[in-house]
Amino acid sequence: MEKIPVMINGLPGNVARTMAAAAIVDKRFTIIPYSLTGADIPHDMTNIGSMDFTLVKPDTRDEKIKEILSLYPFFIAIDYTHPTAVNSNARFYVRNNIPFVMGTTGGDREKLKQTLDQGSILAVIAPNMAKQIVGFQAMMAYGARTFPGLFKGFSLKVKESHQQSKADTSGTARAMVGYFNDLGVDFKVDDIQQIRAPEIQEKEWNIPREHLSGHGWHTYTLTADDGSSLFEFTHNINGRDIYVSGTFDAVIFLKEKLLLKEDRKRVFTMIDVLNQA
Amino acid sequence: MEKIPVMINGLPGNVARTMAAAAIVDKRFTIIPYSLTGADIPHDMTNIGSMDFTLVKPDTRDEKIKEILSLYPFFIAIDYTHPTAVNSNARFYVRNNIPFVMGTTGGDREKLKQTLDQGSILAVIAPNMAKQIVGFQAMMAYGARTFPGLFKGFSLKVKESHQQSKADTSGTARAMVGYFNDLGVDFKVDDIQQIRAPEIQEKEWNIPREHLSGHGWHTYTLTADDGSSLFEFTHNINGRDIYVSGTFDAVIFLKEKLLLKEDRKRVFTMIDVLNQA
Repeated sequence: MEKIPVMINGLPGNVARTMAAAAIVDKRFTIIPYSLTGADIPHDMTNIGSMDFTLVKPDTRDEKIKEILSLYPFFIAIDYTHPTAVNSNARFYVRNNIPFVMGTTGGDREKLKQTLDQGSILAVIAPNMAKQIVGFQAMMAYGARTFPGLFKGFSLKVKESHQQSKADTSGTARAMVGYFNDLGVDFKVDDIQQIRAPEIQEKEWNIPREHLSGHGWHTYTLTADDGSSLFEFTHNINGRDIYVSGTFDAVIFLKEKLLLKEDRKRVFTMIDVLNQA
Repeated sequence: MEKIPVMINGLPGNVARTMAAAAIVDKRFTIIPYSLTGADIPHDMTNIGSMDFTLVKPDTRDEKIKEILSLYPFFIAIDYTHPTAVNSNARFYVRNNIPFVMGTTGGDREKLKQTLDQGSILAVIAPNMAKQIVGFQAMMAYGARTFPGLFKGFSLKVKESHQQSKADTSGTARAMVGYFNDLGVDFKVDDIQQIRAPEIQEKEWNIPREHLSGHGWHTYTLTADDGSSLFEFTHNINGRDIYVSGTFDAVIFLKEKLLLKEDRKRVFTMIDVLNQA
């Protein structure tokens, strides 16, 4: 198979570094030695393993991209930047006809779709690239749609643990609460228990020490008010390998969609990627 | 609402007793004071609370049913008898035009459907009447159908605990293993861990002592071979209240279907009951 050129944006950030390190040793990809970065990043270059990357800041990127596109006429961008950059990056990709996989969360998601509608490029946009979690969410969404009120009379507890640096509530837990609400359970997103203290994570949750700096553990517990039954769903992710694999699947999916010129849909989700697999 | 006359078959068995005790105090039902029973039951009568039931054995039931039908021209049968009685009871219901809810497991399920095809009555047939479990199974079936291979590269562990008197492997666990197989997981029904020892159930599983004689606890654990992720699904049922509620919903569903003469389908499952709700 021909190698797919990819540009990994968001260096020197953690997730982008993880993606780049994995892509460098993945024979399916050729890595472009440039990366979009934030205005506040003090460096002009970063390196991962033996590879040097030129960091491209917002004020020079419109000029720089001409040079990049002359060297690499086709590539797919992988975006793991910052919530504040989501919308301007999407506009940049559309303006320059660069298909992209948007793994960055946050930003204005409605505007993001509008930007795509105004252009002619394809994108995979997904707040969670872990295929098994996306699949499980799809199963929950199906349940909520097909059997509304199924868990009426049940109480819910939601506990999630993430690395201390994550300030906001888990987006996956928020989405799951929505499904549980449709299933008849009275529960507010504010009632999600967030664990961020490493000592509790290690001692009470038994999260491996090496993953305290990067993990996402979630448990949803439904208890019948009469004590007759309990349903519990858990998904625990250590590190970021699972997101790498899903992101690369999205790149390959996008490449295939680009070859099929007739497809009219322009924005895809991980559900589309899963359905294709 | 008009009360629905029901005949609860399987007395003096445990599950039938539970159903009868609940139906007696449920204002939606009138209880018929007869119950089909097995040839080996030494009694002719049994009582539940203040109500006496005549036990009707296989050798006299064809005669006895004429008397019962002359007293109660319409009723719905609830069958919690014995796996060995499933097929002959179904033939008995069809022969006498008695709509029924079959909660008894086992027997020849294929023949059971054929029996219904030969008659003109309606039935709800379901090996599990717990609505939330049935709904969860439907979500798993959807996942297996929509995302085959989603959990490829994962190892599965299945543990189930039931009262000591249950000799066979959990039917729900068997069905779930089928979905996990479709999701890409290599696992055999024989590898299901069955817990039947009350001391382990109480000490290691923390199953309440009062439910050691009647419970169904199941846990399915998927672990990624690289240790990066774990998915775990648990459903723990104490006692039999959850089956009572589902069975009665099935009776009400069946009554409504009988009123709609145009429906051509004759055999329904708990999924149909859930979809209606």
